[in-house]
Amino acid sequence: MRIEDAMDRVNDQVVLAERPTTILEASTTRLESTSAPQPQEGEALVEVGYLSIDPTIRTWMDDAPGYLPPIGIGEVVRSGGIGTVVESNNSRYNVGDLVFGTVGWQRYCIAGKGSQAMTVIPAGVDPLLAINVLGVTGLTAYFGMTDVGHIREGDVVVVSGAAGATGSSAGQIAKILGAKTVIGIAGSNEKCALLTSELGYDVAINYKTDNVAAALKEAAPKGVDLFFDNVGGEILDIVLAQLAMRGRVVLCGAISQYTTPGRPKGPANYLNLIIKRGSMEGFIILDYADRYGEAQGQLLTWLLEGKLHHAEHVLDGLDRAPEALNLLFTGGNTGKVIVRL
Amino acid sequence: MRIEDAMDRVNDQVVLAERPTTILEASTTRLESTSAPQPQEGEALVEVGYLSIDPTIRTWMDDAPGYLPPIGIGEVVRSGGIGTVVESNNSRYNVGDLVFGTVGWQRYCIAGKGSQAMTVIPAGVDPLLAINVLGVTGLTAYFGMTDVGHIREGDVVVVSGAAGATGSSAGQIAKILGAKTVIGIAGSNEKCALLTSELGYDVAINYKTDNVAAALKEAAPKGVDLFFDNVGGEILDIVLAQLAMRGRVVLCGAISQYTTPGRPKGPANYLNLIIKRGSMEGFIILDYADRYGEAQGQLLTWLLEGKLHHAEHVLDGLDRAPEALNLLFTGGNTGKVIVRL
Repeated sequence: MRIEDAMDRVNDQVVLAERPTTILEASTTRLESTSAPQPQEGEALVEVGYLSIDPTIRTWMDDAPGYLPPIGIGEVVRSGGIGTVVESNNSRYNVGDLVFGTVGWQRYCIAGKGSQAMTVIPAGVDPLLAINVLGVTGLTAYFGMTDVGHIREGDVVVVSGAAGATGSSAGQIAKILGAKTVIGIAGSNEKCALLTSELGYDVAINYKTDNVAAALKEAAPKGVDLFFDNVGGEILDIVLAQLAMRGRVVLCGAISQYTTPGRPKGPANYLNLIIKRGSMEGFIILDYADRYGEAQGQLLTWLLEGKLHHAEHVLDGLDRAPEALNLLFTGGNTGKVIVRL
Repeated sequence: MRIEDAMDRVNDQVVLAERPTTILEASTTRLESTSAPQPQEGEALVEVGYLSIDPTIRTWMDDAPGYLPPIGIGEVVRSGGIGTVVESNNSRYNVGDLVFGTVGWQRYCIAGKGSQAMTVIPAGVDPLLAINVLGVTGLTAYFGMTDVGHIREGDVVVVSGAAGATGSSAGQIAKILGAKTVIGIAGSNEKCALLTSELGYDVAINYKTDNVAAALKEAAPKGVDLFFDNVGGEILDIVLAQLAMRGRVVLCGAISQYTTPGRPKGPANYLNLIIKRGSMEGFIILDYADRYGEAQGQLLTWLLEGKLHHAEHVLDGLDRAPEALNLLFTGGNTGKVIVRL
């Protein structure tokens, strides 16, 4: 390919214009257009096809310490995603390869080394699967349930944000691995119906209409052995109060708190961790990078066996990325939110 | 001994008259006198010599679920302590033996089976030691640091309530087991001086006069590996914000919250457990009962080697037990609070 062709490529980008205080507003981001970057020696140019829309993106928009630095004002919004290699100066990336990595909310990005390294997706794998169950979402559910939560046969398990991307995999994985009862908490009757009809949950609780504490007491009369928490806030407090002896809380996220200005709501019932000899532990999926392959093999097996179901919520167009992110906080999605370019 | 003699023994008791809302008031407890109980077959009569005054007693006074049932109104206040066997119908207990167990705030109690079982203290062990470093206090510090906190060589350790009974042992145990830096948080300059001059702490922070967050940042610039928390509240939040990667929080108690009406203050910074892949775990020393001997052997060795120092704060007279308990919440004690009858 001649350099002139590459120069012709227009790179549309969504950049952070100002820091949001709650959900994203029109003024939070700005569309910009520039020339696509020129891949240097060891690099490849990737045309982005899909953006993985995850709650953690919202946390990177705050000017607060985190596991990654905040997105700077004027910078492209950081995001996982999948693209196709369109030009390559690196033998790891062949033109036509589907690759996964930190692509950003933009049409073109560079695959290279370090934080720019991308993973080549084996031929034949559906990109929607690669971005959902076989991607960071499914991996988070898998390692959260196994390595962090130490799921055991016979466990009574609760998952919050159960119809979300991670939650819907987490509950199914718990059930596959022998949980006695898997209880999902979600925000609509439609989501609750999906949990019990398709996603293997035994019980679904609608936190907007049910008395969560009473419903949980009924579904888990002997208490909760393992709570996989995606939402934080009041639901975390309710479950903490109903932990079983040596109950474990896996802190995956706190989606109810990310768009609330000020400090998060601390769980007042944390002292039940003493009474019940319980534990609460956080994790970041990046720490498991060298074991992704092992987990992907297991997840793929379950997919092929028909044990693991998945749902994607796809929006078309780069300009819809901010709207897509907001869906996570307004509860507008069922399954993994993906933007298709 | 004739039955008539036993009948002559007057059993002074401190009973719970009403549930306190903050610290104990004059109306919270009531002194009563009755005849000492008559030991049945398999039981012994114990004359109480020392009461172990622990924060957990205050939690039993609330009408709330806990690891033990609440003390009923009109019942003798539950308490650990040490006494002397004065009459016995059980070959395990010989007249003259010093025994440790749940004696209650009273002059006489029964040693027997189940919850009335008591442990005979080997001859030659000072009862103040048996109730402090070799008792539940020292055992709590020991198992909290080792089995729950997984103390490791090179750890940066923080202990709150550091001049209290458990805290003063916990910090020393951390140092003995190879902690690089042990930082104590306490409530007066006298206590802070004691921490660094006698109890092996590297740094002491006075939470009443120092900026705790700034002082902690200076003492632990790379963050806190292990936090042994006795107090909860604002201090827990400050330390959570300064956890090192994979930092651990051992929840021993929350003395700042026990006398505060309403729900405890939840730690708003708990989400740092995700960012730092940290954990927070509670425990109850009763679970380690079958390993007390192992720990007592180790603690006794350190005592004999001069590595472990201890302090007791003794008040004389059963009627002073309520006042003694309040000392824990007003910060009036240094070391283990004991009531001597």
